Order: sequence, then structure tokens, then C-alpha cells
Amino acid sequence: MNFGSDNVYGVHPAIMDAVVAANSGTQASYGSDAYTRRAQEQLSAVFECELDAFLVLTGTAANSLCLSAMTPPYGAIICHGDAHILVDECGAPELFTGGAKLIGINDPRGKLQPGSIEKVLDGFSRGEHDPKPAAISLTQATELGTVYSVDEIAAIGELARSRSMKLHMDGARFSNALVSEGCTPAEMTWKSGVDALSFGCTKNGAMALEAVVFFDRALAADFSHRRMRAAQLLSKGRFLGAQMNTYLENGLWLDNARYANDMATYLKDGLEATGKMRMPLPVQANEVFPIMPRELFDLLLSKGVVTYQWPGEGPGNDVVADGEVFARFVCSFMTSRDDCDALVREVEAWNGAT
Amino acid sequence: MNFGSDNVYGVHPAIMDAVVAANSGTQASYGSDAYTRRAQEQLSAVFECELDAFLVLTGTAANSLCLSAMTPPYGAIICHGDAHILVDECGAPELFTGGAKLIGINDPRGKLQPGSIEKVLDGFSRGEHDPKPAAISLTQATELGTVYSVDEIAAIGELARSRSMKLHMDGARFSNALVSEGCTPAEMTWKSGVDALSFGCTKNGAMALEAVVFFDRALAADFSHRRMRAAQLLSKGRFLGAQMNTYLENGLWLDNARYANDMATYLKDGLEATGKMRMPLPVQANEVFPIMPRELFDLLLSKGVVTYQWPGEGPGNDVVADGEVFARFVCSFMTSRDDCDALVREVEAWNGAT
Amino acid sequence: MNFGSDNVYGVHPAIMDAVVAANSGTQASYGSDAYTRRAQEQLSAVFECELDAFLVLTGTAANSLCLSAMTPPYGAIICHGDAHILVDECGAPELFTGGAKLIGINDPRGKLQPGSIEKVLDGFSRGEHDPKPAAISLTQATELGTVYSVDEIAAIGELARSRSMKLHMDGARFSNALVSEGCTPAEMTWKSGVDALSFGCTKNGAMALEAVVFFDRALAADFSHRRMRAAQLLSKGRFLGAQMNTYLENGLWLDNARYANDMATYLKDGLEATGKMRMPLPVQANEVFPIMPRELFDLLLSKGVVTYQWPGEGPGNDVVADGEVFARFVCSFMTSRDDCDALVREVEAWNGAT
Amino acid sequence: MNFGSDNVYGVHPAIMDAVVAANSGTQASYGSDAYTRRAQEQLSAVFECELDAFLVLTGTAANSLCLSAMTPPYGAIICHGDAHILVDECGAPELFTGGAKLIGINDPRGKLQPGSIEKVLDGFSRGEHDPKPAAISLTQATELGTVYSVDEIAAIGELARSRSMKLHMDGARFSNALVSEGCTPAEMTWKSGVDALSFGCTKNGAMALEAVVFFDRALAADFSHRRMRAAQLLSKGRFLGAQMNTYLENGLWLDNARYANDMATYLKDGLEATGKMRMPLPVQANEVFPIMPRELFDLLLSKGVVTYQWPGEGPGNDVVADGEVFARFVCSFMTSRDDCDALVREVEAWNGAT
Repeated sequence: MNFGSDNVYGVHPAIMDAVVAANSGTQASYGSDAYTRRAQEQLSAVFECELDAFLVLTGTAANSLCLSAMTPPYGAIICHGDAHILVDECGAPELFTGGAKLIGINDPRGKLQPGSIEKVLDGFSRGEHDPKPAAISLTQATELGTVYSVDEIAAIGELARSRSMKLHMDGARFSNALVSEGCTPAEMTWKSGVDALSFGCTKNGAMALEAVVFFDRALAADFSHRRMRAAQLLSKGRFLGAQMNTYLENGLWLDNARYANDMATYLKDGLEATGKMRMPLPVQANEVFPIMPRELFDLLLSKGVVTYQWPGEGPGNDVVADGEVFARFVCSFMTSRDDCDALVREVEAWNGAT
Repeated sequence: MNFGSDNVYGVHPAIMDAVVAANSGTQASYGSDAYTRRAQEQLSAVFECELDAFLVLTGTAANSLCLSAMTPPYGAIICHGDAHILVDECGAPELFTGGAKLIGINDPRGKLQPGSIEKVLDGFSRGEHDPKPAAISLTQATELGTVYSVDEIAAIGELARSRSMKLHMDGARFSNALVSEGCTPAEMTWKSGVDALSFGCTKNGAMALEAVVFFDRALAADFSHRRMRAAQLLSKGRFLGAQMNTYLENGLWLDNARYANDMATYLKDGLEATGKMRMPLPVQANEVFPIMPRELFDLLLSKGVVTYQWPGEGPGNDVVADGEVFARFVCSFMTSRDDCDALVREVEAWNGAT
Repeated sequence: MNFGSDNVYGVHPAIMDAVVAANSGTQASYGSDAYTRRAQEQLSAVFECELDAFLVLTGTAANSLCLSAMTPPYGAIICHGDAHILVDECGAPELFTGGAKLIGINDPRGKLQPGSIEKVLDGFSRGEHDPKPAAISLTQATELGTVYSVDEIAAIGELARSRSMKLHMDGARFSNALVSEGCTPAEMTWKSGVDALSFGCTKNGAMALEAVVFFDRALAADFSHRRMRAAQLLSKGRFLGAQMNTYLENGLWLDNARYANDMATYLKDGLEATGKMRMPLPVQANEVFPIMPRELFDLLLSKGVVTYQWPGEGPGNDVVADGEVFARFVCSFMTSRDDCDALVREVEAWNGAT
Repeated sequence: MNFGSDNVYGVHPAIMDAVVAANSGTQASYGSDAYTRRAQEQLSAVFECELDAFLVLTGTAANSLCLSAMTPPYGAIICHGDAHILVDECGAPELFTGGAKLIGINDPRGKLQPGSIEKVLDGFSRGEHDPKPAAISLTQATELGTVYSVDEIAAIGELARSRSMKLHMDGARFSNALVSEGCTPAEMTWKSGVDALSFGCTKNGAMALEAVVFFDRALAADFSHRRMRAAQLLSKGRFLGAQMNTYLENGLWLDNARYANDMATYLKDGLEATGKMRMPLPVQANEVFPIMPRELFDLLLSKGVVTYQWPGEGPGNDVVADGEVFARFVCSFMTSRDDCDALVREVEAWNGAT
């Protein structure tokens, strides 16, 4: 019963097959291979526009490098207080941007609100003593498993443009958000003002694959240098291209995301029905964040359930009391219904006070 | 007939099998998996000592991160003028070290000589106006396909120690050098004063795998933070561990290297016998560097031979005249004897003047 | 009536005389001059210990460089949410530390509390995904004109040591705090666990002079390289040394600070007596922070009073309502009693509603 | 007899008087004062064009910050192998540019030649594996006391433009070069393709003053942020402005430079007439670089002559034999004819073999 992360599961079999199949003959190295070219074309088709796409190896690399093209070293990046770029990447954005300043805002439900962003920006009254506002970064789906609607994104896109800032989307769970919102990839990104996207694939079935996608192509001007300098240009690049080809073909990426989202909703319904925990947040993607008694949480750990006490600020619209835990359960493209059922049974069997 | 790089070939079948086999069940993410633990143990056994090993995704990452633990940002790193870290990594060492200064020395045959290093160090007479001498980096095998003997390494190790500097080895082709020199991994590294090694696997049959190996374990103190911040901590880390397990098991790494070296010698003998080019350098690993007429070089390109005009300073012990090309031919664990024969036949068939 | 900053006034006449007097004959450049040596000796005497002191040109340089010796690039620095290093230096600490992460805590009255620091540190539960806690930075006097007592500093010093972190003190207004607290320089620093101090002189009468003072001398090991690389090593260093000599001689620094503090208390008493504004904070150094009606604030500006709406989070122990302004008035070693009186008269003359 | 550096002498009396005179009343801080505005206007007048000028405190700051606006972190800066930015600033350009790569060329007489620059640029054949050629930096006067003619600068300016690179001039001794070449400041800079200038004043009589001057004003867009982040924005900025005002008024800067140049020529003639040393380089500014027997060099040191063995590569057009020293003698605006005469007499008195 492993709900610890999307990453504890392996690679989707079809993607693994594609990696194996790519292993024949010679191919130009460093991303000049046929697989990578095809991946770039596919991304352009999926997003229905001309774009510049660069394959990299980790999500942290995608985010940090993408941001490095969107801010000067003396710039500021506005993000949520729970954002992966702020609290999970050990300062990688600071490294790759040359020291830009990340400013976290603790809005509820993991979602930045335009008014909060404006307040921070209006507080930049010290001229050159302040950093230069450069970019806003949204996480889609958010770190709390919620999803920005297209309208919400567009409102922040509008704000970014009005302030001459760029809009970045950390799409580590982009596919989960996309199938949740039911719109097109274009609507969720460039049509709503997103300038660049970290397009995550690893959490959703790939082995080690993320794409930096620039809709504002001016940002891509020197990105090949940036990627090389960041040690993210794979010599045997065909294996990245091959993963992406299969990931996008026949909608595998959407099927995987839909399945994971469905499991999360299924799990949430089961857990909620036990009456032993409350759900402060809607489940809009593949993550469930209940508030539960610590005694129950500890019991689950002792039963071998892999889960996680969320270290951030809490949901923001509910208070985690002493003796309670704000926990995270992640479902992936491989999570089984049986595991969900087994977890619910453990919760049901607990007789402690809620 | 692709002699362009070790990287144009794919993955050794046994390693690919290991990757596929690792794709079952759940595993802790971010390098806490069983495969990675086993890899670390294996490296310790191979090098016959306690050590700290960290798996990363690219050779540039291995080098740059390794150096970042060996020099302060105001430090100097002495390397060969042709060194990969100096001329092929687009400034990645500068990024990861926070701006350390690489100082290249153009010694002949791609090999640093102690006297040349000392001369540079003695020239640091400006106190704090100079960078602080911090590390020496050797490339083994060198960029010109030559190999440092154990004695040569030990002499530089001695020099480093006497100057309170650290000794790094860029081992992108460590295995090729090792089988060439016929010593143990321990003798080629820590027994000769090497403090840290970039242990390359990708060029020699892996998919995307390098290890940073610290023999001076004090250097490893915070390396997990460094790796994370550099976006080199793979979430599905099992796939790195699995590659390394098979790479090291049953001496696959040595077999691959021996084969590639043999092919290079075979190719060199064939080419030399044609009398159409000269060999300024011994072939000690898996690369052949002839000087040939440009007309012949262009002919080979037109015949589909993939090769490369070396952009560096030349061999240093021979002069590349106008109308000549200093070319590089790389043999890998997959290079076929047939391809070598075919190349030699093309050269033989050429009737131009040498 | 200029209460805008300590910096709007010039240089104390005795210090200017010293600069002029130093302008004769030749002196070794780059800090090897006799004046600078004497300054280092004086600092050692003032702080009653062996120490390493380095003269630099700006307060931002002193802070950023000092911190660069106290944290690795992947480290975290805990500071107050209003700290100069966090919100007034345009990312200079990020530049000089190579990208370390500053984490601001909005404790009331501008003063960090041990419990708040511990809560942040305890939240670092993600291992290498978090930055490494490296340093705590106190501002003394604080940005809100309050002063840490020796006991308060010692408690944070204790906490730092127990967490293997270093303690930095931003002493841009160190002298103001010192005369306020009435202790010795040693008690306020190394005897309370401070490892390094930015010893500010410019705000208190010098022209352009700050000292980085290391009580933990291991931190100073390569600091001459750091200072040079940061472009803070003045070629005609005698003029820094000469300023410091006079600043410390005969207690000029303490006299200046005492005078400025006295003026601030005098001003605060006068303003408070008008009944037109409230004082949420004690005046412990040379700054006064009233909360007043915006109408009054605007009137003062229109009358030529130079003051400043504080852009930070507010005092934390009082709420700034709509229609109110949280303002800052700074007194310096040159502020005249007449200016204070004139300001109070303007406030008294205002007939608006409070 | 101090010929060690331009910096061993103090400040020109007129400039010191200006500093003293500026010390009255209040002034807006951080460069918003009247003196600084006037300095900017004067620079514009001197260079006969609209420009953006920023005052900073050290020459290393001027160079490094200026370059940071001219190259991305993944860029390359071409300079002479003896350039101050390469060998005297402890990596400050690497710090402020975020890790750009400086590439030194050892052309003779300290002067870059277009053909040498082109050869380096043509060698950048590895695409993203190479840094991106971004800027060329000339030193005027050069580190070897020679001066680029306007035609030589224009040729390099042309080359820079044709390669889409920017042209920087390190003008630590700009005034010495200017009076030597006898052209206008405009001709020596923007009319010859110079995009940005480090305009040095400290060596030529100021206390601590350099200006970054942008002729290509697009480069200045965010420079106020860069300067602040680099800790080079002086709070009591009036004292920088006041120095510049007097430096430029009534041609003081040109008079100082002319005097220093004259002294250097006078010294060179005297030394050469002794027949005890040879002069491999013309004296075109305020420095003399003889090659002399080490025995004579050591004698001079023992007699209290302050001079310097040049640590660089030598003049390039003459060979420094074993037993010889390539020495540097610097004359400043304060060097006395008596000191020159006394030095010549010491040389004449030496009876050793040449």
C-alpha cells in the first residue's frame, strides 16, 4: 500500500518497450537524433502551436532551467509558499538563475490569487533595493492536489502581462490537471498567458523525462547553451526522445493521468465514508490530503502504509489541530484499486476517537 | 561506419535487460532504493576501500559537481588545455563551483606534466588577486586517447598534496584506461593520490549513468545537497542503480573497455599500414588520432564515415600542416571489425598525395 | 527637517580631518598600509579578543560577504522578515553566497524569537530537498529600532550552537544598540555566541566604512580572497583605515551613537505628547516608528519633512489600520534638536482627527 | 623611490578639497544627490553623447559589473592573457557575470590583434558545448603600458560587431592612453565601436572612484539593480559625485595623466641611457617595462626602490633570459622628477655585467 509518491512506481510498460526498441543502430548524440526531433514535433502538435521544446532529465532541472530563461539574477519570482521550486529543490532555482529571489505566498488551497500577487508587487517600493519582479510561477496541479481553472490561469496571465512579468507553469502533474479540467493543452497554457511550461512526464509513467516548453519563443534563444551548461544534455538523447514519443502517442499520457485521478477520487470517497477523517480540499487530480488523528496516522504507518505528513503550511482553509496530521496520499498510473480498498479497510478498522 | 563518438551507439544489451528487470513493484524514490545501495557497495568492492559514491545522469554533471566539492568559488582548477571540463562543458564547472577559474595547460599528448603545473602555481604571486589553487584535474584516458601511467598519476598526486590541493580524475573513459594500464582500480586512483573520481559508464555501455566517487570522504560531507541542488537526483533512482549493478557485475565494464581498446588498435594498425596518414600519438585506449591530408578527410566524410576534426591545439608533439587534418576516430564496445575494415579500405582506395 | 535616513548627513568632522591627514606620502596599497593595521589592532582592543577584521566599503558588502563565509551555497540563513539582507539588498546575499536561501520570520517588534527559529528548523524535514541550515542573522539594532538584550542574543547563540549553525549580527547600527544596552562590545557579540559581525560605521559618522569582524576566526581563513573577488578591496586602503582609527579613538563612535539615540528619544517624547500619533514600539536606538493618520503623514511631507512609510509587515504587535501610516523617523549624529522641535510643532499644529 | 603602482600615492589635493567641501548639509542618499547628477552630466559632455554612467568604488567592480551587462553567464569574454580582469581580480568577473568564461590571448606588447581573436572564435566549433561568444575586452592603456590607436580599436570594434559581440574597454588608465594618443574621448570609445567603458579615476588622482559608462544604452537597462546587488551603491553617494566633478573640471584628469606619462618617458630615457637594461616596449603611457639583469633588480630593491617583477608572460616580442627580470615601474600624477633621477643614478652606479 504505497501512496508515498508518484515516483515509487516504475515505468509504464509501453514506454519501457519504446526505450528498448530505440536501442539499435547508431544515432547522432546530444539530442540530434531522430527520436528527439519527433518528440519536438509531437509536442508542437499537442499544444497546437509553434514552440521550442527541450528534453531534460529531472523536474527540478526543468523548473530551474526554465526559470533561468525568465528572470535575471537580480529578479524576483512569485510562487506559492508550498511550491516545489521554493521548498523542495534545495535551492536549484537559485543556482540556475544565478541567485534570483523566490517569494512565496501562502494562499489557501495551494493556489495563488491575483490579489495576493499584486499586494506583494505593490510592496516593492524600494527601487533598486528590491529585486526586479520578473516571473510568476504556478504549479498545475498544485502541491495540494487542486487545479487552477483556465479562467484562474488567464487572470494571472493577464496580471503577469500587465506587470511585464513572465508566467511559468510547473507542470510536474500537468496531465493530471489537464484531464481534470477537461480543456485542451493549448487552453491551459499559451491561450491563458503561460509563457513557458515544465512539462512533467516522469511522475506519470516515464523513466526520467521532462520537457521545457517555450510558448514565448524568444525565451528559448540560448536555451541549448543553458541546458548544456546545466549538465542536462543527455549524450544518448534517443532514449529521452523515445520515451516522449510513446508517452504522447495514442494519448497514453492522458490515459495514465485519468486513471490516477480516478483512483484518487475513489480513495477519497472511501476514506471519507469511514467518518474517521475530514477532507479540507477537493480532490481534483491524483492526490488526497485528509486531516486525521495522529493516532490513526501512526497506526497506518505501522501497518505498512506508505504515506507522508505534509510539511507545509496546511491547507489554509482549515486548521490542523494538535493531535492531528495533515497527510498526503498519492495515486499513480499504477496504483491498484485493491490497495485503495485495503487502505480504507485499515481506516475503518480503527476504533480511536476522531 | 560511425566513429564519431562512443555515444552514438546505444546501451549494452545486458544493461538494458537490467533496466527492464528493475521495472517491477514499488521502490523508495530519490536514490533510497535497493539497487542504488547495491551499486554503492559494488563500487566500494571494486575500489577496495570505504568510499562515498553518488550516481548522476551525465558526465558533465559528474565532473562539475565533483569539482564543486573540491574548490571554493574563488579557487583555481588546473587542467589540460584540451580537457572536457575546460572546452566541452559550456561553463558547467563555472556554474556548479560558483565561478571557480579553470586554467588550461597545453602539454603535449594530452597529458599534464608536473613541471608545467608547478610553473603555473609558482606564477600565482599576486596573493589575494590570484585565485586560490584548489584542485588539479586529470583526464583518464586523456582527450587524445593517451593514458597516464600509475607513476605519472602518483607524481601529480604527490604534487597536489604538497601544495594542499585536491586531485580530481575525469574518468569518462576510466575503464579504457584501466584495462590499458593493467592495474587495479585502487592503484589508478586513491593509491596514487586521487581524491575524487568521475566514474564514467555511459560511453562504455550504460544508458545515462556516471558516478561521483569520493576517496577523500570529507569531500562528500554535503554532497547529497549538492546533487539535489544541481537537479541530478533522479526520482526513479532504481534505474541508475540497476545499470550500475550490471555494469560492474562479472566484469562487463572491463570486457566492454577491452573490446573497444582492441578495436582502436586494430583500426590504427590498419590505417597506418596504408601509408596514407601518420599517427602522432600512441593508441592506448579506444581512440585513434591520425594526421591526414584534408582531401582524404573530406573524401571519408563524403563516403559516410562519421569522424571529427579535433578542434583543440593538436597533439603537441607533431605539427598539423596546412592542408592536413588532425582527426579523431572513436571505437566503442559496439564498433564492429567490419566497420574498421571498411574504413581502411576507403583509405587504401584513395590515390591522392600524402 | 530630514529624518529620512542616517545616511543623508555627511561625515563627522573629526573623521573628515583624519581622511585629509592620511593624504600624504606613499603607502602600500590594497590594505597593507599602516592605517589599516592600526584599525585592526583597535578593533581587537575594543572587542577584547583576538579577531580577524576586514574593512569594506558598504554595509551590503559587509553583510553579504560575511554571510558568504558562514553558509555553503546550498545553505539556509534564518533572519527576520524585515531584515535588510532579505528585503533591502536586491539579492546581494544570494550573489555573494552563491545562491543561499534567506528565510524570513515575521516576529513582532523586529526581533527574532528562538521558538520561531526552532519551528522553521524543525520544518526542514525533507532531507537533501531542503537547504542545509547554516546561519542565523540578527540585526542589532533591529530594523524597527528595537534592541536585542544580551540575554536574548545569548539565547539565540545557544540555539545556533545546538543546531551547528553560525550566528551573524548585522550591526549597521551596532553602536546605537550598544550604548542603549549599556554592555561591552564583547558582551554583545562573542560572549553571547556571535560568530561574525558586520560592524557598521557609515551610518554613524564615517564616509564609506564597514568592517567584517570574525570572532570565529576559522571563518576568516580565505576571507581576503572573498573580499578581493567581491571588488571590495580598496587600492588606496589608507583612507578606510584612517576613518576607522578616528572613529574608534576617544570613543567618538559611542558619543555619536549616544547623541543620535538621545535625539530619537527626545523626538519620540515630543511626538507622543502631541496626542496625534501612537508609538507601538519602544525607542531603544536612533529610530522612531509612530503609527499616524495618513492625512498627517501627507501634511508632514508637504511641509518638507523627509520621512518614510515603512514598507514592511508592520510592528507585529499593533495593527496599522486603513487610513493610517506606519512611518519611520531616523535621528543621526548630526540631527539637531531644532529640527526635532520643528517637527513636533508641525504635528501639534495639525487639527485633523486621530 | 616608489614606482610600485599608481595606487601608492594618495589623492590629488583639489579632489580632496572637493570631498571636504561636499560635507555640509543633507543630501539624498544612494546616488540621488546633486553631485552625482552633475557628474553624469559632465561625463556626457566629455564624451559628447548621450550615455548612462554609474559611479562605483573600485576598478574591479567597474570591470566586473560592466561585463555582467555584456555577457550571459554561459558567454565567453575574449581578452588579453595579461588582462587585469583575467589575472588580477581573483575571479570577480566570474562572480558578477554568474560564471562567464574569460579566454586570454597572449598577443605581443599586451595588445589584442583582430586575427588572434578571430582564430579563437573560429575554434568555437562545438555548438552548445562551447560558451557563446559575447564580449571582447580591451585594456587601454594596456597592462604593458602600450596604447591601442584609434584605428586598432576601430578594427576590433568592427570585428565585435560582425560577430554580434559587445566591445568593452577597461580604462583603468584611460586618461593616460587618451593624452598619449591625442584624440578625443569620443574617438577613443563609441566612435570606434566601444559599447561600454570602465572609466578609471582612482589611479589618476581620485580616492575611490570609477565610472561604468554605457554608450550602448540598452546595456544599462537594469544596471542600477546590478550595482545595488553588487554592493557598490554608496549610501553617502555625494562623495563619489564630488570627486568626479573636480576630476573632470578644468581638465584636471588630463593634466594628471599628461604629467604621469611625461615622467614615465623621462624615466625611460634616463634608464635606457645607462646602457644597463633594454626596453622591449615603447613607453606610451605612464609605465616603463625594462628587461634587466636580476642582480641589478635585486640591488634596486635593496636600495629601497619599490618596483615589481611582472608575473605575466613577458612582452611577447623579446625573450626574458635566465638571470633577467622583466620589471615594471609606474609613474603617477605625484611621482617626482627627483625620484626618477635618483633611480637612474642607482642604475648608473651598478657595475655588474649586463
